[in-house]
Amino acid sequence: MTENSALVVFSGGQDSTTCLFWAKKNFEKVFAICFDYGQRHITEIQAAKNIAKMANIDLRTMQIPFINQLTHNALTDIHIKMDEKKTANSLPNTFVQGRNLFFLSIAAVYARESGAKNIVTGVSQTDFSGYPDCRDTFIRSLNATLNLALEEQFIIHTPLMWLNKAQTWQLADELGVFDIVKNFSLTCYNGITGDGCGNCPACKLRSAGLKIYRESKNEL
Amino acid sequence: MTENSALVVFSGGQDSTTCLFWAKKNFEKVFAICFDYGQRHITEIQAAKNIAKMANIDLRTMQIPFINQLTHNALTDIHIKMDEKKTANSLPNTFVQGRNLFFLSIAAVYARESGAKNIVTGVSQTDFSGYPDCRDTFIRSLNATLNLALEEQFIIHTPLMWLNKAQTWQLADELGVFDIVKNFSLTCYNGITGDGCGNCPACKLRSAGLKIYRESKNEL
Repeated sequence: MTENSALVVFSGGQDSTTCLFWAKKNFEKVFAICFDYGQRHITEIQAAKNIAKMANIDLRTMQIPFINQLTHNALTDIHIKMDEKKTANSLPNTFVQGRNLFFLSIAAVYARESGAKNIVTGVSQTDFSGYPDCRDTFIRSLNATLNLALEEQFIIHTPLMWLNKAQTWQLADELGVFDIVKNFSLTCYNGITGDGCGNCPACKLRSAGLKIYRESKNEL
Repeated sequence: MTENSALVVFSGGQDSTTCLFWAKKNFEKVFAICFDYGQRHITEIQAAKNIAKMANIDLRTMQIPFINQLTHNALTDIHIKMDEKKTANSLPNTFVQGRNLFFLSIAAVYARESGAKNIVTGVSQTDFSGYPDCRDTFIRSLNATLNLALEEQFIIHTPLMWLNKAQTWQLADELGVFDIVKNFSLTCYNGITGDGCGNCPACKLRSAGLKIYRESKNEL
């Protein structure tokens, strides 16, 4: 296992793109894994590939269609209408149950095969949105579980865990990749790269954070 | 979630067959899940289906070929010769890395979808064989992780955790299913149901346990 090698769980979205460059700054060898589980928008995979190329990072795409067999929801089933607002006291219907559980477990096996000790993920408890598998306590518990399962000493890094979207924009700026994140990452539920459709919940969250960051920057 | 409903992680082998009938005795509603990940012997899936039918249990088969993309080893890759004896200080080359991590994680999502609170697995620390994902501490850690990931209160049951193979035969006998386990379960690495080839490590472990159990029974 190499102390200075890191595997980034990468989707091509704002958060994981920021993490990819964070990893490049913090580790000598960085590579990435992304997951094709039947997302609505295959453009997400394409965005990931484009950014990986710009960053000069090896990206492995894993096909995991079993995720779709397990749960039906708005992100993977085009027959279900996306909720604009999530219902109180219930998970948003974009929830792929246990998604990060599977992404990080597969990443750990791949990291082990590749000799990497560090795993980087862009999950954030701040923009938690009702997803239990984005919480810090889940990640810490999973880290222990993965180390027991594979007899390794992985360290899962979550550089965005306590950042809000404005602070994530700030981090991208500090890493010198603000423009790459802004123009090439894909967060939009309607599959539009960069600033996106502007109307879906993901675009609204992203642009609200950007507005706050820009205002705070202008105030300095 | 139903207190009296249980999902059994089922392979059609001696251990999980015993667990299937243990679950039938202990829970009102029992169903099962098995995994097709490109085992050498598809007869394993057939054995699982046969036994599920005998036990009058709904069995869902999940296709998870990604397991094969992750690691290459003797159980799934016919080009690798199986070790007759495992090497000292190393995992046996039949090890699918993190197999129980994936089986139980998928089972948890399926249990949740089906409203079952209980998950039953035949892992045993006694016949640990170098597999870290059969240890009690791993199962307990995973249980906590799954509960956090899915915001549920699953209980993972491991009725064989502290039993050796002889005691597992005894349990099958006490459950009144000794003959079913002996004749229809499949443990053999060469894909032969029941007593198997008699020569592979799995057959030797199984028959040694059976011999000990029979001797202890005759002594009573």
